[in-house]
Amino acid sequence: MKTTQVHRLSMAHPGDLSALAALIDAGAVKAPEIVAVIGKTEGNGGVNDFTRGFFTQSLMWLLSKHLGLSVDDALARVPCVLSGGTEGVLSPHYLVFCVSESVGARPITQPTLAVGVAFTEPTPAEHVGRPQQIEAVAAAVRAAMAQASLQPQDVRFVQVKGPGVTVAKAQAAAARGAAPLTSDPNRSMALTRAAGAFGVALALGETTLSANELAAKALSDFHVQSPRASISSGVEVLCNEVIVLGNSAAWGGRLRIGHGVMNDALDIAGIHAALGDLGLAAAPQLSAADADRVRGVLVKCEPQRTGRIRGHRHTMLDDTDINAQRHIRGALGGLVSGVLGDGRVFVSGGAEHQGPDGGGLIAVIADVGVLT
Amino acid sequence: MKTTQVHRLSMAHPGDLSALAALIDAGAVKAPEIVAVIGKTEGNGGVNDFTRGFFTQSLMWLLSKHLGLSVDDALARVPCVLSGGTEGVLSPHYLVFCVSESVGARPITQPTLAVGVAFTEPTPAEHVGRPQQIEAVAAAVRAAMAQASLQPQDVRFVQVKGPGVTVAKAQAAAARGAAPLTSDPNRSMALTRAAGAFGVALALGETTLSANELAAKALSDFHVQSPRASISSGVEVLCNEVIVLGNSAAWGGRLRIGHGVMNDALDIAGIHAALGDLGLAAAPQLSAADADRVRGVLVKCEPQRTGRIRGHRHTMLDDTDINAQRHIRGALGGLVSGVLGDGRVFVSGGAEHQGPDGGGLIAVIADVGVLT
Amino acid sequence: MKTTQVHRLSMAHPGDLSALAALIDAGAVKAPEIVAVIGKTEGNGGVNDFTRGFFTQSLMWLLSKHLGLSVDDALARVPCVLSGGTEGVLSPHYLVFCVSESVGARPITQPTLAVGVAFTEPTPAEHVGRPQQIEAVAAAVRAAMAQASLQPQDVRFVQVKGPGVTVAKAQAAAARGAAPLTSDPNRSMALTRAAGAFGVALALGETTLSANELAAKALSDFHVQSPRASISSGVEVLCNEVIVLGNSAAWGGRLRIGHGVMNDALDIAGIHAALGDLGLAAAPQLSAADADRVRGVLVKCEPQRTGRIRGHRHTMLDDTDINAQRHIRGALGGLVSGVLGDGRVFVSGGAEHQGPDGGGLIAVIADVGVLT
Amino acid sequence: MKTTQVHRLSMAHPGDLSALAALIDAGAVKAPEIVAVIGKTEGNGGVNDFTRGFFTQSLMWLLSKHLGLSVDDALARVPCVLSGGTEGVLSPHYLVFCVSESVGARPITQPTLAVGVAFTEPTPAEHVGRPQQIEAVAAAVRAAMAQASLQPQDVRFVQVKGPGVTVAKAQAAAARGAAPLTSDPNRSMALTRAAGAFGVALALGETTLSANELAAKALSDFHVQSPRASISSGVEVLCNEVIVLGNSAAWGGRLRIGHGVMNDALDIAGIHAALGDLGLAAAPQLSAADADRVRGVLVKCEPQRTGRIRGHRHTMLDDTDINAQRHIRGALGGLVSGVLGDGRVFVSGGAEHQGPDGGGLIAVIADVGVLT
Repeated sequence: MKTTQVHRLSMAHPGDLSALAALIDAGAVKAPEIVAVIGKTEGNGGVNDFTRGFFTQSLMWLLSKHLGLSVDDALARVPCVLSGGTEGVLSPHYLVFCVSESVGARPITQPTLAVGVAFTEPTPAEHVGRPQQIEAVAAAVRAAMAQASLQPQDVRFVQVKGPGVTVAKAQAAAARGAAPLTSDPNRSMALTRAAGAFGVALALGETTLSANELAAKALSDFHVQSPRASISSGVEVLCNEVIVLGNSAAWGGRLRIGHGVMNDALDIAGIHAALGDLGLAAAPQLSAADADRVRGVLVKCEPQRTGRIRGHRHTMLDDTDINAQRHIRGALGGLVSGVLGDGRVFVSGGAEHQGPDGGGLIAVIADVGVLT
Repeated sequence: MKTTQVHRLSMAHPGDLSALAALIDAGAVKAPEIVAVIGKTEGNGGVNDFTRGFFTQSLMWLLSKHLGLSVDDALARVPCVLSGGTEGVLSPHYLVFCVSESVGARPITQPTLAVGVAFTEPTPAEHVGRPQQIEAVAAAVRAAMAQASLQPQDVRFVQVKGPGVTVAKAQAAAARGAAPLTSDPNRSMALTRAAGAFGVALALGETTLSANELAAKALSDFHVQSPRASISSGVEVLCNEVIVLGNSAAWGGRLRIGHGVMNDALDIAGIHAALGDLGLAAAPQLSAADADRVRGVLVKCEPQRTGRIRGHRHTMLDDTDINAQRHIRGALGGLVSGVLGDGRVFVSGGAEHQGPDGGGLIAVIADVGVLT
Repeated sequence: MKTTQVHRLSMAHPGDLSALAALIDAGAVKAPEIVAVIGKTEGNGGVNDFTRGFFTQSLMWLLSKHLGLSVDDALARVPCVLSGGTEGVLSPHYLVFCVSESVGARPITQPTLAVGVAFTEPTPAEHVGRPQQIEAVAAAVRAAMAQASLQPQDVRFVQVKGPGVTVAKAQAAAARGAAPLTSDPNRSMALTRAAGAFGVALALGETTLSANELAAKALSDFHVQSPRASISSGVEVLCNEVIVLGNSAAWGGRLRIGHGVMNDALDIAGIHAALGDLGLAAAPQLSAADADRVRGVLVKCEPQRTGRIRGHRHTMLDDTDINAQRHIRGALGGLVSGVLGDGRVFVSGGAEHQGPDGGGLIAVIADVGVLT
Repeated sequence: MKTTQVHRLSMAHPGDLSALAALIDAGAVKAPEIVAVIGKTEGNGGVNDFTRGFFTQSLMWLLSKHLGLSVDDALARVPCVLSGGTEGVLSPHYLVFCVSESVGARPITQPTLAVGVAFTEPTPAEHVGRPQQIEAVAAAVRAAMAQASLQPQDVRFVQVKGPGVTVAKAQAAAARGAAPLTSDPNRSMALTRAAGAFGVALALGETTLSANELAAKALSDFHVQSPRASISSGVEVLCNEVIVLGNSAAWGGRLRIGHGVMNDALDIAGIHAALGDLGLAAAPQLSAADADRVRGVLVKCEPQRTGRIRGHRHTMLDDTDINAQRHIRGALGGLVSGVLGDGRVFVSGGAEHQGPDGGGLIAVIADVGVLT
């Protein structure tokens, strides 16, 4: 029976993989069992956030050494999805997902955490935000679900990382006669997130629209969304990397993943919903013992486009000094960390078409063994 | 019997006083009854935050017109304490405190909100952070308490705004032979906050140390603190402005002020404590009806100097792109706003010696009439 | 005979008009002779730059007092064009243009500085960047030229300030059924600058295209441009304000304006060209005596959209921490200030369609009396 | 006879060493001949600038592969000094210094470029800014001069990179009973630069003060300075790395290094002086042919602490949004790049005690073979 383990590890800087290296050296992690890494690095989360590339390079060299693979082969085997930006109380950390074969009876009666991963082909700059990218992501999500034996209704969270377009890439595309949707790097990052979310919605059967119809709604009709999609983007990635997380009765272990929808950035009830899914309660904060059960927290969110939250003006979208994504990550990070009593929260901005317009979603992974 | 009213008003930009002007025009606010204004403007909260000066100029011209005073006389009559920075979900707004004489019986049996205000003499650059400033603030706090008939134990929150030192002011001081403690504007803002907090602690009897002894601990021994002091700083103010808030059995009205201590930036229990003081409960968020009772929320906080929160590294103090105060305001703003369901929260960073080291404090003003 | 005087004044902060107040009090400036103000304030130059509004409010209150007009009437009489952002060595300052009637012979034989001003009607959010705005600006430029008795070939510099669209304004327009070209504030600022430049080109006969044809090229075909247009934008202005500067044989005084085109941000020869137009030479810097002749320096520039300057990659357009306009203002400010030996340079970014693509333009006003 | 070659290479991102890899693969660079690398990466140049670590890791893995050394041994062999921050027109690039043995007569009669390198032992956090660091740097400079057969008067430029102190490092030092001079990371970076500059001054005989006396003047008496010292700092380095550049009659090749002092950030004459040292003239810009001779440009500078440049207020030191070093790099970068016609300029801020107070220095390396 396949079993998922999740290690939540800290780093001293974006190139610091020493915590994982130590686990591997101690035999606590077997490198071949690592199926995915999701992390939060301390960059700006924008186009020129090189902390993601630095971490990825460091991780892949480590895996390369332990797997006997080239760095390129390691990159093609283990999806590594990073979100830059540890604003406010957020703490730089990464989750290492390991899958092993366990024997014997399932330790708990509930379905437990299952993981599947897949990659698309490289996405050229001119496909970013277009139907081609949507369909490629959908196909990868289906492949990852099949790998994990998960049905759409079992899925709780799908993480995708897609490629953005730098000015240089847009120039190169234009030079070969291709027409990217935009040459503005920040807009390209938004488009790749929209396409990723639509790909997830397509694969999970959350929409009846076609990829063409969906593409026409990218960054314009935000009612079309997937409440289980979390999409990151970066200029250092070339293809779309997909990690599907859900609960399966066919998997072993004691971990489960809970899910909540956040209707806006003040929706603390959504956080409680995700915890409730796991039988955990914050009153008003998780107890230290329950906080210790938590293995990973994954949040997506965005500033409300109306410029208002519950009737009151916010200033995130009119700020030339601090990018709106940095603002919203800091605010949501403060709220979620306060409820959980721990700043090791993956909060990713840019939630276009991921959860309700102006809101987002949250997933929590915890060891619920004792609770059953 | 004196009664306090608090109007929480929104602004479209830092020079927009139209909401107050409309209340005055409608007769809902009598200009001579305005005793203090506390507001949150959308600047960076740092040395070059001119949103505070813009708001103050606009307010004082309005008051000048309605009070028949010169602008300078209006400035010397109504303390206006502003904190720049509406990071994340925070909404630009201001609280207008009005005191009127009411007749008849007190509407509720509990002590109710009392306000006193005072000003120090102008503080020269070379006094910033020194015993002279501490003693001047303490004297002003005592004067404000006397004005409001409040004893030290009745006080819940003391807001002070003190002057920072620009490079130009430091140069001018040096030119006349005076030696400011620092010529670094950001450090001067911290020093003025430390001196303000010590002045409050002295006046409230929270410390047995002398002003000289306190000055020696400024920005070095953070165990010496006042859990009821909230100090803002700005380069546009010349003297220390003091607003004392407490609950008094001698005042009328239906407003009360509650208070809580926050031990760190994740201490959601401190927020619940302040609400509990008022008989309000968030489960997990205030109900819409209870949120409507709230008239003002005042929070101070700061990043932990150890670089860690509950054992995990934060990055606020090592960030060259975003000032640490902006980080912590965004995080606390997200947490408090989420518990209250409203982004109109005054969150001020720079909590040196204001509440526990690495933490802060919160005060909530609400109409508790129906609850009695 | 009409004569222009230009006072270059410093400010201690964006609300500091004391230098102008002192000149008026001393009789050196007659308030009714003030026809225009162009200034550089120390904000971020972006959507949330309130230093412009703060300065404007302060200026208009001063003028209101001295002109016996309401503030609104003062605003409608004296165009005040501000560019936020004093990056690097730039110094906050403002130019006050005064026109008086002089008697007697012209002091120099060359044509001398003439000024004309005009305003358009308020531009609604949905007209920003559209033919309506282009035509309105063109009409205002023609009116200002007529006022100054300038022919198109005599004009050296046309400054326009046009309105941007905040998220709130875009929402309001949508609510009344209008469709702004964008709801992204930064993009709206670029559109208003494009429309302003096209309006100047139209009025000066620099293009044979119609307003409709020009609008279609906004922010897409940057070969269409005016080498004499300088357009600022801000969310605090409602209409387009126009100031036309040129040299006229019909005006008196000893001031002239020189002009140079900058093909890219490294084009130091363009600066020398503008100086040469005035008979001034920098070798490599203006002498102190010649620097003293300078009354104002006006520069527009922008980062090259290709992401490269002379074949080498720049990073301005890929930076999530610092807005590209702040980058380019700092660089050009350093170059121009170094050639002139003075940081009081008006450098405004956002040079879309103003001068060559990826470059900009410069105008210098100096007293050339002794040189004739 | 030893000969220096300098390759000026571009990078697509901070981890991109492909240009150097290609030269090595093509045989144009022999890895064992690489003695030093100086580069400009596109970070913020502050405490949390990880572009330096990313580049260093990438470089050292490349060298490790080609030298048959471990990464640690490569780090201990080739000093790699990086300055983060390519504000404005600056272009990310790096200089690779190679030293080979050449045979035959010297191609030009003038002394030519000689290079020496050295490392100190690791500097613990508590030594940063103290006499121990000053003496360690001085010893390393002397060792590097000896290696290059340079006398003090032959030296034109000494680059040092020293370690800063993060909050975490300061905590660790305190935990073991040591007392760093500061726990403020930005201040520690300034202290390490001061100590480095004093070490250079000591080794070059530019001062008669002792290390103890010098340490007492760190960041307080800026008249004590070295006009040939350029010190970078970063939290990712552990020891002080030293690169000495000068001209020697004992070395071969056609490269020379010129030097100029800049009295302030507007001192364009200092740039011309460095060019004049090499027989080059900018009128007003280097010709394309002469620009092609340039192999490297190295600049240090800083904002004037008085808050004024030539009598006019600058805003760099009062800016909470953009670090002062980013401002000054952008301004100087614009000026130097404009004179040279090329944005590949190494401009490093933080010029405490390096060149005149409020100014800095410049060195230019060029092929002057044809000029002799």
